[in-house]
Formats: sequence, structure tokens, C-alpha cells
Amino acid sequence: MASRLDTVRRRLADLGVDAALLTFLPDIRWAVGFTGSNGVLLVMPGAAHFVTDGRYRTQAEQEVEGAEIHVPGYKLFAYVAEHGLLSEANTCVVQSDHVTVAELDQLRGLMQTIRFQPVNKFLVEAVATKSDDEIGRIRAAQVITDSVFVDLLSMIKPGVSELDVSAEIVYHHLKRGCEWMAFEPIVASGARGALPHARPSAKAIELGNMVVIDMGGVKDGYASDRTRTVAVGEPGDEARKVYQIVRDAQEAAIEAAHSGMTGRELDAVARGVIDAAGYGDAFSHSLGHGIGLQTHEWPALSSRVEDVLPVGAAVTLEPGIYLAGRFGVRIEDIVVLGEDGCSNLTSSPKELLVL
Amino acid sequence: MASRLDTVRRRLADLGVDAALLTFLPDIRWAVGFTGSNGVLLVMPGAAHFVTDGRYRTQAEQEVEGAEIHVPGYKLFAYVAEHGLLSEANTCVVQSDHVTVAELDQLRGLMQTIRFQPVNKFLVEAVATKSDDEIGRIRAAQVITDSVFVDLLSMIKPGVSELDVSAEIVYHHLKRGCEWMAFEPIVASGARGALPHARPSAKAIELGNMVVIDMGGVKDGYASDRTRTVAVGEPGDEARKVYQIVRDAQEAAIEAAHSGMTGRELDAVARGVIDAAGYGDAFSHSLGHGIGLQTHEWPALSSRVEDVLPVGAAVTLEPGIYLAGRFGVRIEDIVVLGEDGCSNLTSSPKELLVL
Repeated sequence: MASRLDTVRRRLADLGVDAALLTFLPDIRWAVGFTGSNGVLLVMPGAAHFVTDGRYRTQAEQEVEGAEIHVPGYKLFAYVAEHGLLSEANTCVVQSDHVTVAELDQLRGLMQTIRFQPVNKFLVEAVATKSDDEIGRIRAAQVITDSVFVDLLSMIKPGVSELDVSAEIVYHHLKRGCEWMAFEPIVASGARGALPHARPSAKAIELGNMVVIDMGGVKDGYASDRTRTVAVGEPGDEARKVYQIVRDAQEAAIEAAHSGMTGRELDAVARGVIDAAGYGDAFSHSLGHGIGLQTHEWPALSSRVEDVLPVGAAVTLEPGIYLAGRFGVRIEDIVVLGEDGCSNLTSSPKELLVL
Repeated sequence: MASRLDTVRRRLADLGVDAALLTFLPDIRWAVGFTGSNGVLLVMPGAAHFVTDGRYRTQAEQEVEGAEIHVPGYKLFAYVAEHGLLSEANTCVVQSDHVTVAELDQLRGLMQTIRFQPVNKFLVEAVATKSDDEIGRIRAAQVITDSVFVDLLSMIKPGVSELDVSAEIVYHHLKRGCEWMAFEPIVASGARGALPHARPSAKAIELGNMVVIDMGGVKDGYASDRTRTVAVGEPGDEARKVYQIVRDAQEAAIEAAHSGMTGRELDAVARGVIDAAGYGDAFSHSLGHGIGLQTHEWPALSSRVEDVLPVGAAVTLEPGIYLAGRFGVRIEDIVVLGEDGCSNLTSSPKELLVL
């Protein structure tokens, strides 16, 4: 953890600012280890302070490394001001992509001698560059998700509802040691599969349905995320054709992925395959996203993003084709980017399973 | 739904502003019904526009009432600017407690002729004042949670881990028709119960443990939230005494609760009971919070909050006592405030159960 606070301090030195006031909880967890739901972290060259409320006193003492702990009650910003925790700073970074307008107003009102400087994406590159330990945790979560998928196959059949499948998904993730889910599972059958972010419903799976199953758990703080689409009974020629196009697009992205390229370039690899097959309009979202302590984090793999992908980033690769009123197909793995390629943390096979 | 957009328009008229640009998703759901994870709602006296990305095209068409739907792709603010959706407005409210500093910068850069006016708590009072339909949904969620609790009792015994209990909690909520959980269940046994927001762990429940079980599901968009503390085997005299103090504090709060009082006044009723019994320092959080489309919403029932509680607000009443290294006790119901009292949506009994 100490080296992560050093990373924050190097960012401050680069920007020529005296202090950082962090409010974004996943970044606070990354920097000092706190896993609760309320806190402020102050980082300066020679000191670090973590401020939380009374619910988290014992937990902060157990978890936080590298920062002095303060437990004033709920009004955390007022405590920072009244106790002069930033009194040696003339300038202080706040995270402009996370701090609200009201919070910044409050800080400026409470500490009028300090110049608060909003910085966008303050730590995203450092957070995206995963350590071996972090990769191991994402892999452990993804291994659980892969194994849950295998167990699900015997229950996915006509008459079973999407919600029934979702309940099993969550139950088995928790029984296998995930502390929580990375997101609400998506179980979308038949025409509902054409809604890329459908919530599971009471709809029963029917013979001939394609079923999109997108799920992930959280293990030791880190998220998994993987999607497979299966057929329940023979799905027909177009569904088989679309499945193969999505698979080709996803495998082309894996083949091409490496650090040093932009999110736009990697998105274009998969999009090119789907465009060439005539389904470009039906791939209605971006290729993927970074993953770690958050399920969705920087970098986005999107046609609109020119950010360069760092070595060690864990990203999802999840192209899809969605035909309104008919069906959808999506296939998703997590890969870790290296300079010459990527390693896949996902082991599930990709042949179309006809259950 | 139409009347809710009228409510937004009345707020605009009160403030003398031409338009509102809403980015907070629970408020967007409240106003026009959209349940997805990305969108912007523009409300003006004579028009309303909802802008989302391609993943939600079909879903928005099915869900959104009272607003014209636009699906430009991911760059929602740029679309609002390029298509002049706010061109008739000179002034526009943004929600200062939700919009980030970076988002407001972006809006101001994209639409330089419009004066964006940050407003704190723009819709909280309207959202807190629940309709009969909304109360019915919270009650339906709470009924599920109550029934899950009854089923749990037979499995809570020495040797069962907190995570095992949590897995059952989630499974039974989903099987009984909740679309998701309102929050990660808290199952905290023995000394872990003294961490008010403990995550379930692999720790096995032991004979003599007090076990805090705090859980809630989401049904038709609305959250439940309830806590009971049970004993596994005889817990001893101090645990029994502390349990009775918390129960007395919680029942005193129910007895006192009504609209028109402040959050501070209601918090003081429960806190007074616990203070008088000599455990004031061990009640380390506020009495409760509003609940509805969000698990935690305005108003807070806290010693620091002077907001007046509106009629029709659904709030939790959840005092607790936490003795570090030993045990914790919390008891929580949801009540709906009326002018002369409150009605309790929670039916579980409060005698100390010794399992």
C-alpha cells in the first residue's frame, strides 16, 4: 500500500500541487485499503489522513495502512477544516470526475485560504495498471464465475424463468466465496436478449431461445465479468450465423489486444468484423471497459476514446449483436494487456452450446 | 407520471428558471419511469426530452412516459448541445448534489449561452412524499424481507458461516420476486456485530453469539430495509439488557414519529433512551434515513439535520448499540409518517429470539 501513496505523491509533484483530497471510495480503497462506504483521504508529501464516521471506527483501525485515522462523526469536511488537516497546503487536488458541485462549494466555503484544483482522471492510469496480486484476485473471481456457469447449464431449460436462473447465479457465487456480486446478473432470453442491459424477468425460457448470461462476482474486492450466449434447443440459421460473427469479432479483438494502442483502435477491430458482416448497426455499445475494484473503470474501449491503453490493464472484450424483437448475442472475456499481446483470464469455451 | 413532471415544472417556476437538466438516475426514474443506467432528462415548461445511449433504445421506448426519446450514442451532453434541446432556455438547473465538477464544466463549455444554476436537493421533498402506490411497493418489498427472515431462523446455528446465511438471504429474496437486493446483506455475529456495517465473512456463528441481520430487497423499483438481532444460545445478562435498551429506544421512536418534526428531534427521542441507559457513546450512527427508489435517500434522521420531515415520507428507524470486541444490537423497521403518527410497514416481532 505504501507504494500507492507514493504514486499519489508523485502525481502531486507532477502537477505542482501540495495536497490531494480524495472522496472516491474505490480510489481510497486502492490507496490505503479501507472498504467501507464513507470516508475522505488527504495525501500530502509528509502526511496522510483518513477521516470516516463512527460506524467505521473499528473497521478503519483494522484496514487502513499508511494514513492517520480520524473519526469525528458524519461531518467529515467540517472536521478537516476545524482541525486544520490541510493547513500546510496552499493548493489541493479534488477529483473533478467524482466530487460534486455541492461538495466543492462546501470545501471552498470551509477552507477559504486553500486553492482547490479540480483534476479529471487523477489516478485512473495508476489504478488501471494492475499488480500481480490484483490480477490474481480478478482471476480468482473470474474462475468462480466460470465454474458457476458450468453448474447453471443443467438448469437452463424451457419453463425456467430468467429470475430463477439469476437467483442460482447469485447463490452459487456467494457459496463459492464471493463477498458480493459485481453487478446484477443479466439473464435475457429470446427477444429480451436484444436489450443489451435487460434485467432478469419472470419470463420463462422457451424452446428455440438464445439466452444471454452476463454475470460477475467480487472476490477480495476485485470484480469478474463474463458473458456467454447459449441456445435452448435449435436456434435456427440466422442465430447460428450471428453467433459466429460475434465470436469472430471477439476472437479478433483478443488477437489484436495489447498495451500502447488506443481504446478506439481496439474497438475498431471487433467493430470491423461485425460491420463487414452487415450487422454494424446492431452492435449498439462499445467493445469493453477496464475492470478491477470497480466493475466499470477506465479505460473505455470505445470508438470515441483516444486514451492509450496501459500495460497491465485488465479489460473486458464484449462485442454483441442485438436484433430488436428477435434475439441478442454477446460474448465477453476479461484479458490483461501486455506489450506484445494479452492473457485471457476467462476459460469458458466459446462453441455455441445447444442445451 | 405526468403529475411528477408537473412537479418538476412547478419547482422551476418557483425558482424562476427556464429548464432543468437532470442526471441523477433515481430522480429520472421517479419523473419518467426509465430504469436503465445512463440517461439525461431535460424538463422545460412546454417540453421534456430524455437522452440515452444505444443499449437502452428499446427499453426507453417501453418505459419512458412524458418525454421525447433521443438515442444518440454515448456522448449525451454533446447531443443536447448540437441538437439545441435547451436552445429556448436562458437558465437551467443542474443538481449540485449529484452533478460532478467535470460534468458541469463540460455543460458550460458546450452551451455557453445558457446559465447553468446548481441547486442542492432540487427534488428531494417531492421524491420523499410517497404516493399510495409507492408505499404499496415498499410494503411489498418489506413483506418479502419479513418472510425471508422467518425462513432463515432454522438455518442460523453454530457452525454456519455469515456468508452462508447471506447467500440464503439473497437467494430467497430473488426467488420470492425481488428484482435485486437493496444492499449487501449484513450478517454480523459475535464481536463482528460491533461493526455496524460489517460485511458477511467466513466466520462461523458460535454458541452464545448475538447475530445482527440487516437486509432488504428491491420490488418494482422500491427498497425494503429491516434489521433484527437474534441470539444463538443464551447470550448472557448484558446482551439481554442491551437488547432491551435498543428495543425501548426503537419503540419510543415509533411512538414519537410524525411529519412536521425535524430529523434531529426524532433522532433525539431514541438517543435519549440510550443515553439515559448509559450507552450513548455506543450508538455511533444516526437513527435512520428516507427510503424508496434509493435505499438511502433524504431525509436523514440525524442529530445534525434540521430538515422538517414531510407527510408521506418512508423512513427507517434503526437505533443500535455496539460494544467493540464483544457484540452489537440493532433493530430496524420502516415507517410512513403521517401528521399524527406513523404506520409501520414491518411486521416481524421484536422479542429477543434465542435460537
